[in-house]
Amino acid sequence: MTATPSPARTIRVDLGERAYDILIGPGLIASAAGEIAARLKGRRMAVVTDEHVAPLYLEPFMAGLAAAGIEAVSTILPAGEKTKSFEHLIPVCEAIIRARIERNDAVIALGGGVIGDLTGFAAGIVRRGSRFIQVPTSLLAQVDSSVGGKTGINSPQGKNLIGVFHQPDLVLADTDVLDTLSPREFRAGYAEVAKYGLIDRPDFFAWLEDNWQAVFAGGEARIEAIAVSCQAKADVVAADERENGRRALLNLGHTFGHALEAATAYESARLVHGEGVSIGMVLAHQFSARMNLASPDVAALVESHLRTVGLPTRLGDIPGGLPPAEVLMDAIAQDKKVKGGKLTFILTRGLGQSFVADDVPASAVLGFLEEKLSA
Amino acid sequence: MTATPSPARTIRVDLGERAYDILIGPGLIASAAGEIAARLKGRRMAVVTDEHVAPLYLEPFMAGLAAAGIEAVSTILPAGEKTKSFEHLIPVCEAIIRARIERNDAVIALGGGVIGDLTGFAAGIVRRGSRFIQVPTSLLAQVDSSVGGKTGINSPQGKNLIGVFHQPDLVLADTDVLDTLSPREFRAGYAEVAKYGLIDRPDFFAWLEDNWQAVFAGGEARIEAIAVSCQAKADVVAADERENGRRALLNLGHTFGHALEAATAYESARLVHGEGVSIGMVLAHQFSARMNLASPDVAALVESHLRTVGLPTRLGDIPGGLPPAEVLMDAIAQDKKVKGGKLTFILTRGLGQSFVADDVPASAVLGFLEEKLSA
Repeated sequence: MTATPSPARTIRVDLGERAYDILIGPGLIASAAGEIAARLKGRRMAVVTDEHVAPLYLEPFMAGLAAAGIEAVSTILPAGEKTKSFEHLIPVCEAIIRARIERNDAVIALGGGVIGDLTGFAAGIVRRGSRFIQVPTSLLAQVDSSVGGKTGINSPQGKNLIGVFHQPDLVLADTDVLDTLSPREFRAGYAEVAKYGLIDRPDFFAWLEDNWQAVFAGGEARIEAIAVSCQAKADVVAADERENGRRALLNLGHTFGHALEAATAYESARLVHGEGVSIGMVLAHQFSARMNLASPDVAALVESHLRTVGLPTRLGDIPGGLPPAEVLMDAIAQDKKVKGGKLTFILTRGLGQSFVADDVPASAVLGFLEEKLSA
Repeated sequence: MTATPSPARTIRVDLGERAYDILIGPGLIASAAGEIAARLKGRRMAVVTDEHVAPLYLEPFMAGLAAAGIEAVSTILPAGEKTKSFEHLIPVCEAIIRARIERNDAVIALGGGVIGDLTGFAAGIVRRGSRFIQVPTSLLAQVDSSVGGKTGINSPQGKNLIGVFHQPDLVLADTDVLDTLSPREFRAGYAEVAKYGLIDRPDFFAWLEDNWQAVFAGGEARIEAIAVSCQAKADVVAADERENGRRALLNLGHTFGHALEAATAYESARLVHGEGVSIGMVLAHQFSARMNLASPDVAALVESHLRTVGLPTRLGDIPGGLPPAEVLMDAIAQDKKVKGGKLTFILTRGLGQSFVADDVPASAVLGFLEEKLSA
């Protein structure tokens, strides 16, 4: 563990005063302390992680910080989506306050999307905003949740309904750590990688169709896929930080996906976020075809690729059954992408031609869901 | 209750995209619904108030909203500083979510500083930021906490350690409601009015020395004092929204004051915020004299005026005794105006010549407090 920076690709998220770098490459956990010490003046840090990640990385990570002259404390939370709650947010806030994190110090999230979202929210509200570093350890967190500044927790009414925009000061995406993910977890993150192709990069989607096995295997193709994904997200976030327009495209597949996560009570044994997004993206393409916006062939192509990599693509793929369409509609209406009672969906006009449709009739969605549930 | 706007003074807080108006005048509670309906497109509102304010104003306020075509729900919280906690924040967030407040709708704080701070924080984090209207019902809230976008709750370690910057969309300061305040509560708010004179408006302080009885009595002098105070705060906030520099001047008297509030366990029977600020401002002036920055005559002048209006000005004025100086120092060090371990205080070079001193030796403060405690 030295302070020598690893060779890594750097992607800049161009947000003026709040601009920051995403470093992507192998061995970044080992060189994290050096990267942090080289960029931040503060010498106190509060690290938040979970009980799955801690045994793998916490001890060397803390030792690296100590060797770099950084005084750090750590908090270990339970793993899983249910951790994104006030119940766990409160002790994290208290731990950050007790650590006396000041303006040049930082809060560090070492973990997947749940840890990143909750820790970023805590960093965003302690002293009305503390510096924040993301060290994402899942593919999902590396390509999606660690970039862009959305933080938050869930409420009983739905996911991410409580939170703030709080940009990190640095993101360190160590591509080696993904080797320890289960195949299911890697696939779930891959759904978000494919999403960037489906939003507006059809060439990237085609590249993934050809190279997905290499991405799963690791090495340069994996780094390339993560870098393209982060660049795609950085572009959208730089253009529309607070989601007044274009940023909503990142929600492709998420309105259906969130409803399915709610319907399965966020039980990861049944459905994890990326799986909900996979099914949601297929539903969004099928619904676009139903609305005569795109050819059904596009939906078939999308489903085919996602099934090939092993992702669920149909409501029937979710074990344990689903509630009636009306209940799913209720979850959709409570989702945050609702304006003036009308439904906002990300739909598509073709492969990689997604757009924000903010006037979708609820009755059409209900009928579509009823049919899919009975299929 | 009609939709006709009252004649009121309007002060603009110039924050670009987040600019908003403060309306100050009599009868604004009665015309609030009209002012709101004229400015916001949304027709759903969530009102938060407390058990002291609710019996006085909630029913007519809700009736006014209904008459203006606004569908509103209300939440009534216990009164008092201890309400500024996660315990009460959580149900307020849930109530806002259940009310399905969307992007053009708003959350309304009807109450004093506690209700405004907590409700603003909830509005700032539900769906990562909802529209927010302040209807401040105490003098303190009208001249200070409702303006400027600081929101938050307390933690066991100190006041306002958890929160966000979230600017209101509108502030409606009804000067009539101040007639129902107890003299003690009005005086506590007056400490913040005097503060604006002591920061950088010596002429306003001199005007207050001559006109304070008219301000307490009501009418035009009161409106003038509130308008000058709001303008003073608006100027500082527009120049430095996020407190990177000049905004810290608003903390004159607050570092000592917050420590005294913590030392009295936020028990309002012993000390309320404005009383802590009053004592804190006198201490800041006395400490400035001790550091040879200003003449002791200035501190004497400040103390004389605050005592004349009936405010406490000395540690010995706080009933029930105080902890040793070391304990007060601990609270000061945990206060959020700390950088790199050094103490930041607002000190003064003369009447209305306050400045940010960010290199104050802790030992000098400790010695000063020990002496004041034994006086």
